[in-house]
Amino acid sequence: RYKNSFIDNLIDIVYCQYMDAVSPEASGIVNQLLTGNKLALARAISNVENGNTPILKSIFKHTGRAYYIGVTGPPGAGKSTLVNQITCQLLDNHKKVGVIAVDPTSPFSGGALLGDRIRMSDLTTREGVFIRSMASRGSLGGLAKATKNVALLFDAFGMDYIIIETIGVGQVELDIASVCDTVVVALVPESGDAIQAMKAGLLEIADIITVNKADREGADRVAIELKFITELRNTKCEWEYPITKTIATEGKGIDELMSLIELHQQYLKISGNFEYKRKQRIKERIKELIDDKIRNLIEKDILTDEKLDTLVNKIYARELDPFQTTDEITRTLFQAIQNEK
Amino acid sequence: RYKNSFIDNLIDIVYCQYMDAVSPEASGIVNQLLTGNKLALARAISNVENGNTPILKSIFKHTGRAYYIGVTGPPGAGKSTLVNQITCQLLDNHKKVGVIAVDPTSPFSGGALLGDRIRMSDLTTREGVFIRSMASRGSLGGLAKATKNVALLFDAFGMDYIIIETIGVGQVELDIASVCDTVVVALVPESGDAIQAMKAGLLEIADIITVNKADREGADRVAIELKFITELRNTKCEWEYPITKTIATEGKGIDELMSLIELHQQYLKISGNFEYKRKQRIKERIKELIDDKIRNLIEKDILTDEKLDTLVNKIYARELDPFQTTDEITRTLFQAIQNEK
Repeated sequence: RYKNSFIDNLIDIVYCQYMDAVSPEASGIVNQLLTGNKLALARAISNVENGNTPILKSIFKHTGRAYYIGVTGPPGAGKSTLVNQITCQLLDNHKKVGVIAVDPTSPFSGGALLGDRIRMSDLTTREGVFIRSMASRGSLGGLAKATKNVALLFDAFGMDYIIIETIGVGQVELDIASVCDTVVVALVPESGDAIQAMKAGLLEIADIITVNKADREGADRVAIELKFITELRNTKCEWEYPITKTIATEGKGIDELMSLIELHQQYLKISGNFEYKRKQRIKERIKELIDDKIRNLIEKDILTDEKLDTLVNKIYARELDPFQTTDEITRTLFQAIQNEK
Repeated sequence: RYKNSFIDNLIDIVYCQYMDAVSPEASGIVNQLLTGNKLALARAISNVENGNTPILKSIFKHTGRAYYIGVTGPPGAGKSTLVNQITCQLLDNHKKVGVIAVDPTSPFSGGALLGDRIRMSDLTTREGVFIRSMASRGSLGGLAKATKNVALLFDAFGMDYIIIETIGVGQVELDIASVCDTVVVALVPESGDAIQAMKAGLLEIADIITVNKADREGADRVAIELKFITELRNTKCEWEYPITKTIATEGKGIDELMSLIELHQQYLKISGNFEYKRKQRIKERIKELIDDKIRNLIEKDILTDEKLDTLVNKIYARELDPFQTTDEITRTLFQAIQNEK
């Protein structure tokens, strides 16, 4: 059967080529990055954000050591202040931390009012931390791809923790959060917030929930609502997300939150879910990358602009339909591959 | 050059096969749908949501007549009440309207408090309207695809207007809104709302902005902020989004909003942008569909689960890297196609 030999051959080819996959121009940046040079890290990030993968190929074998924490929640939940506090605690414990802010309204992304920016500045001057904002909006999925690639660079650089801050509304944003080992969902004590979080799919990806701004009225009520929603669920999980309370602006409840993150980390390792989840993510990654490369190749080699315009005009005039047309294109592609084998 | 002949042959094939593309089992539903049978419409929607395209192929030539209105904005902006009001006005003018609620917190999606649900019920009992909720969360992009396909069914059914309500936060959600001919962005008079809307990319897709809940304090201030932001932009547009005010719960300002929608519709037709934008959307659609089909075919025919697991284990052990691996897979695919030609 051609399928098996196709992939088997492929793995052989990849094995043979692996050792000389490092391009000479990238190896300079890579070597410096691996020795902890922050300037090299910054250059690697720009390089990778522009869509270049040679660096990623070279550094990949040095990745897999960092622990990923996602912080997500609706706008105004105080995610950035939480990230700030978590990062400070980790730095105090002599850990190296990479922060990726995907939320366009985050102060890390330059999206804050003056007060916030000042509060963050004590973080940016500390050793052992590197903050990267991914606020610029790319194509659908482009943001998610860039975030994962920058995280790999942080990982190879030697970060112990990578913290990803995303806004907890929207499909892509939830997908970004779900690449993390531990996902902290931040809510605020506001009417209906628990229900909204459930509907937005936040509770599905939560490993830990914190009711932030817990000095506001209603914090206990939200916590009770969350417990109620959890108990309503039919499926019992091995790990039921604990619900805690924080006042991030005053640093209150952060110790408790950090303990919960550590507890979840231990749970993942002991239960075997750490390896399982990471392998699932690699699987998704392979599919995404193939998808991505094929789309690029099709646009360059097969569906040229001129040809595409011809099809568009015929479809606009309802002489063709897009479903049948694209069926034919892909069928022709795959027939070619099958005949080859 | 092979590229040209490849696509030329393709177009010929598609032309020849077009007339017998209608599958017999779908044609029953299709015929009933085209004569305005609501039950057939509902069945077609379920069919299409399950990923079947034969119906879409059959109905495509009957589409292109409906006008698409998008209503988007941050949570709590009163989007559903606005959609309700716009729909009622159109129904009063003897127009047929299809409503697609993508917002999971919309009352149309069953996501409202009791009060809202009661308010909506007068809409659902009226003639000439069909409401479909797309609140269930699919894979990344799955929601966008389903929304576009259901809209095509509404179009073929003979709807004069299709209104799509999405939450204005998140990449996929903005992409859904941007398939509409006229995008209405709803904001509320709250501190920093104009700035947030700018950062979330809402102002980039807005054709009309309404400050809803305009009886609240600060409505004029938000309107002034929005004008200020618009004037700051370097690029001048042919169509500068007008800013209006509504109190949707009381029906105030709806007449003005409807006039602006009509004005924008006329502008699009006169300027030639209507055809241009719709062709751009077809172009995007072709690329999406090819992408989709190739992903499906690869998962079925080439990257079987077993083979994928082998790759995943090697990548997890850092014996392979995902970038080089997927490079090889796609390169092999395209070499096969090129050798064929």
